Amino acid sequence: MIKFQAEIDVMPKKEILDPQGKAVTGSMKNLGLSEIQNVRIGKHISLQIEAENEQAAHAKVDQACKNLLANLIMESYSFKLEQV
Amino acid sequence: MIKFQAEIDVMPKKEILDPQGKAVTGSMKNLGLSEIQNVRIGKHISLQIEAENEQAAHAKVDQACKNLLANLIMESYSFKLEQV
Repeated sequence: MIKFQAEIDVMPKKEILDPQGKAVTGSMKNLGLSEIQNVRIGKHISLQIEAENEQAAHAKVDQACKNLLANLIMESYSFKLEQV
Repeated sequence: MIKFQAEIDVMPKKEILDPQGKAVTGSMKNLGLSEIQNVRIGKHISLQIEAENEQAAHAKVDQACKNLLANLIMESYSFKLEQV
């Protein structure tokens, strides 16, 4: 079995309002960072997985994202795998 | 002014307990994904910034992370900049 490290981003979909991001964009102005725009806030998930090969690991992480980590109605996800 | 896209990860520090990650690790077993271990959950933040050059953008995003996005006592951050 090979061990992989997965780095997953789960973000609110573009067409979905992100109130937390909007609030942080506003706060940037108060910090004197008005050059910062379009803040969007999601989740970053790191995990380790053992699988026979990268393809199998990819399928398992995909399943974990779909069934547990992301709400596909409101969120989209992407991830990278790296052998450790 | 050049526009950059920043992709920031804010994660709980390794020495800090991550109860949300622990709970998700447990849930993986119930989903038949017991090959998944060491789940840690943090934030992913995307934003756009205008600056004169990459160095200036880097300094601004660093400032935003230190002052607003990350709690440096419990969290560490990393980010990537890309010209858009």
